Amino acid sequence: MSFKTDIEIAREANKKPIQEVGAKLGISSDDLLPYGHDKAKVSQQFINSVQDRPDGKLILVTAINPTPAGEGKTTTTVGLGDGLNAIGRNAAICIREASLGPCFGMKGGAAGGGYAQVVPMEEMNLHFTGDFHAITSAHNLLSAMIDNHIYWGNKLEIDERRVVWRRVMDMNDRALRDIVTSLGGVANGFPRQTGFDITVASEVMAILCLARDLTDLQRRLGDIIVAYTRAREPITCRDIKADGAMTVLLKDAMQPNLVQTLENNPAFVHGGPFANIAHGCNSVIATTTALKLADYVVTEAGFGADLGAEKFMNIKCRKAGIAPSAVVVVATVRAMKMNGGVAKADLGPENVQAVQAGCPNLGRHIENVKSFGVPVVVAINHFVSDTDAEVAAVKEYVASMGAEAILCKHWAKGSEGVIDLATRVAEIADADMANFAPLYPDEMSLFQKIETVAKRIYRADEVLADAKIRKQLKEWEEAGYGNLPVCMAKTQYSFTTDPNRRGAPTGHSVPIREVRLSAGAGFVVVICGEIMTMPGLPSVPASETIMLNAEGQIEGLF
Amino acid sequence: MSFKTDIEIAREANKKPIQEVGAKLGISSDDLLPYGHDKAKVSQQFINSVQDRPDGKLILVTAINPTPAGEGKTTTTVGLGDGLNAIGRNAAICIREASLGPCFGMKGGAAGGGYAQVVPMEEMNLHFTGDFHAITSAHNLLSAMIDNHIYWGNKLEIDERRVVWRRVMDMNDRALRDIVTSLGGVANGFPRQTGFDITVASEVMAILCLARDLTDLQRRLGDIIVAYTRAREPITCRDIKADGAMTVLLKDAMQPNLVQTLENNPAFVHGGPFANIAHGCNSVIATTTALKLADYVVTEAGFGADLGAEKFMNIKCRKAGIAPSAVVVVATVRAMKMNGGVAKADLGPENVQAVQAGCPNLGRHIENVKSFGVPVVVAINHFVSDTDAEVAAVKEYVASMGAEAILCKHWAKGSEGVIDLATRVAEIADADMANFAPLYPDEMSLFQKIETVAKRIYRADEVLADAKIRKQLKEWEEAGYGNLPVCMAKTQYSFTTDPNRRGAPTGHSVPIREVRLSAGAGFVVVICGEIMTMPGLPSVPASETIMLNAEGQIEGLF
Repeated sequence: MSFKTDIEIAREANKKPIQEVGAKLGISSDDLLPYGHDKAKVSQQFINSVQDRPDGKLILVTAINPTPAGEGKTTTTVGLGDGLNAIGRNAAICIREASLGPCFGMKGGAAGGGYAQVVPMEEMNLHFTGDFHAITSAHNLLSAMIDNHIYWGNKLEIDERRVVWRRVMDMNDRALRDIVTSLGGVANGFPRQTGFDITVASEVMAILCLARDLTDLQRRLGDIIVAYTRAREPITCRDIKADGAMTVLLKDAMQPNLVQTLENNPAFVHGGPFANIAHGCNSVIATTTALKLADYVVTEAGFGADLGAEKFMNIKCRKAGIAPSAVVVVATVRAMKMNGGVAKADLGPENVQAVQAGCPNLGRHIENVKSFGVPVVVAINHFVSDTDAEVAAVKEYVASMGAEAILCKHWAKGSEGVIDLATRVAEIADADMANFAPLYPDEMSLFQKIETVAKRIYRADEVLADAKIRKQLKEWEEAGYGNLPVCMAKTQYSFTTDPNRRGAPTGHSVPIREVRLSAGAGFVVVICGEIMTMPGLPSVPASETIMLNAEGQIEGLF
Repeated sequence: MSFKTDIEIAREANKKPIQEVGAKLGISSDDLLPYGHDKAKVSQQFINSVQDRPDGKLILVTAINPTPAGEGKTTTTVGLGDGLNAIGRNAAICIREASLGPCFGMKGGAAGGGYAQVVPMEEMNLHFTGDFHAITSAHNLLSAMIDNHIYWGNKLEIDERRVVWRRVMDMNDRALRDIVTSLGGVANGFPRQTGFDITVASEVMAILCLARDLTDLQRRLGDIIVAYTRAREPITCRDIKADGAMTVLLKDAMQPNLVQTLENNPAFVHGGPFANIAHGCNSVIATTTALKLADYVVTEAGFGADLGAEKFMNIKCRKAGIAPSAVVVVATVRAMKMNGGVAKADLGPENVQAVQAGCPNLGRHIENVKSFGVPVVVAINHFVSDTDAEVAAVKEYVASMGAEAILCKHWAKGSEGVIDLATRVAEIADADMANFAPLYPDEMSLFQKIETVAKRIYRADEVLADAKIRKQLKEWEEAGYGNLPVCMAKTQYSFTTDPNRRGAPTGHSVPIREVRLSAGAGFVVVICGEIMTMPGLPSVPASETIMLNAEGQIEGLF
């Protein structure tokens, strides 16, 4: 049996002009700003004009903890969107944009897979509509203006040792992680140690993804803390007077991008913040716009449900005033086996016992999501080697948790393979069963918020934090930041902070290494473990084999 | 008397959909890749399809040495293009893209002025169609791959001290001029001193602007010398295997951008290499494409004719196999006065004597341009305070040089103000009077080429270069680079290397500080004086006052 690759399938796509895709959502050609013939931005003017319409139903797709076996969260998001359209519902999907840097490192970065993909695949993995470039420019303009302020007399009395705003580049470049700038004499400024992060780690990215409109965007940009004085007074982006120009640079990037699935259904692809030091969801403006235009909006959150869904609920939904009507947890038989202790190389043969042994990971995610007051369905993303007995084992386990698992074959069959899931999800959403509430109130102290997530979601016994960290949290509370949600940065591979502990561990501790204030984005980042904000390239980077072939097509990108 | 500002005029523009502008040149909607409703890229497929058509006439607009009084070279280029259309000719213009970085430093960056502008002005000064971002990404991917190669074992035996490829950012950021990278330990690589240039100074920019097609682009990218071994053997981009992925990143950027003038005439705006360490003209692909689509193509070159026109002829025309049918030298009465010794503050009152005293600067440019075998017309770009007697003095002087000066009022009146110039230029171009030849043959030695430019264009007595520089040139000749043209990097404010020597000096020397090989772009850069490849921001940067107003319009950018 031989399969077509994702790129082969994507190249065969029968794409419609983007104006036709927009028309499905009632967007006229004038309100679409085209980028080529198959991509467009939805104009801010149009978005403003639909604000009084009622909202459609929001459906979140999340997953178990990721394993090397793969789960297919984006694939399922795309498949479910196509499935809802196939059963006659007016549905749109909302996913994140891909980062350029990693595409040149390891293969990958595609939007979905098999017959559940969003196109144009190549452009989405390269410059797309330039949003990430705009974010890079806005971020680095602020960086340049900070050093320029110090250079021209430093009226704000910035302590050069306490500049916390770095620079960004959408590239995997380890050489830029830790650098000294302004060498070479007086004309180049005051030397100081700093560095670059990858663009998706920029607070500007998180802000763009959480801002409701351009006014909110500028306010949040202005709130960014960029440095401190010797007396430890914060200096903001507004003090540097960069917020206006940054907003101008981000004006177009704030407009959501519209593309299409292989089945020509509308897909918003907008924003892509890190899922560790940021909240890992597509933009609020894309989601809220989609909700005005479609009856069902299928969206996803980064990593597994312990990180992605938690932040989706506690950060994005809280800030945007939205709530999911249903949540789909994606699992695969293979991933259950890995959670049950099987190595990747041994995933081939049937092993019902291992599936059963791994299911508690899924079970805990189901429980966790339910604790937000939202109904859950499990999507078993089918892989050709799965046996009936293995699938049955997952279904049985999920039923024992008071939920339902539905086998999905969208990867191989597109919407046709996901009709059951789409039908059930639509039923649940239509029944208005959800009674959503975030896990903790704004008023709770920052440390208690961390404890709440650690104990109720990670099922840890305790949170470990030294006095310095507790003091820092107290100081932020006194400075008026106590009402912010917390943004947990933890390994995605485990409920614990140890990436090797699969399954559903208990009795562990969550040690906090560091806390950071993202005053513009509006959350406190809680770092539990090593977090890399500037990746490196592997010994043989994908970029060595990426090229145009004789037909002018891109080879090696996927 | 009060005037509208450039931005006020631009905002009142009655823009046509870009498809209508394209239709004027016979480009169908399918062959235009729109970026919004008023910008588009011309598809590579369409460009390939018109290669067998005859070429239109090429008209170069150049100028006297720039003074703080302003000359209006772009304004005249746009005005002349509109003027040719107004007299019933099928004309297009070709100009450079603006760099984002400087827009946030000093006010300015507009494309033309008054009633001779290209629109949409804001977008052209911000991200436009993303070309410069693509160049930045391609450049920095190569940078990351070089350090990554060293990190993973350095099989090519690159001498870390001899990495000559820096990084770029489209930003004025003096702190990045001179930096140390890879600090922080083993995982971050080998610390070394390097820095960032502004994107327009990237050799990738020069290459994009000189490449004939994607195949030529990849070959040139591959030829870039990025480092040397301890034995001083060059390491190229091809050795690093980055040329394929860089070409992929530049695939869209290679397609020329189409916009329109205020009078809805087609304008190609594509590429923008530095006019000192590079050749300072818009892309070859835009110019050659325009020549296939229009009967007259009006284009410009950076700085004054001593630098811009010289490089246009000796580098761009030579490499692209094109030649101008006529050259327009732009001058203003005010600039003549400044060349005649008047300070900027004293330009108000009539001063015919100063005009006459300044005219030899213009005269020498006329002579120089003629020496390439092309007919010359002088455009006097009218300023409201110019008196009839002053204008007459310029005309008289130009007549004495065997040329013709024509008063132009396109700034105030659009095409209506430039009918005389357009008529005369069309006459000259139609008469096929040009007998173009570059100033020196490929076979001449590199040092002799430098001497030829210095003596025949700058009218210097001698070129000063120490033994090390002469030896370097010899080595490059031995390595097979002797047939390249030279790219002079000199102050634009004077024929000499001293920016304060206005007029038409003689008897000076041209000292060479440094020579650099741009093996991919295909020229040897000859640096005579201080050349800044990463600007800084002023004490009160324009970015402090750039913002969106209540109507969502951009304020402060111009």
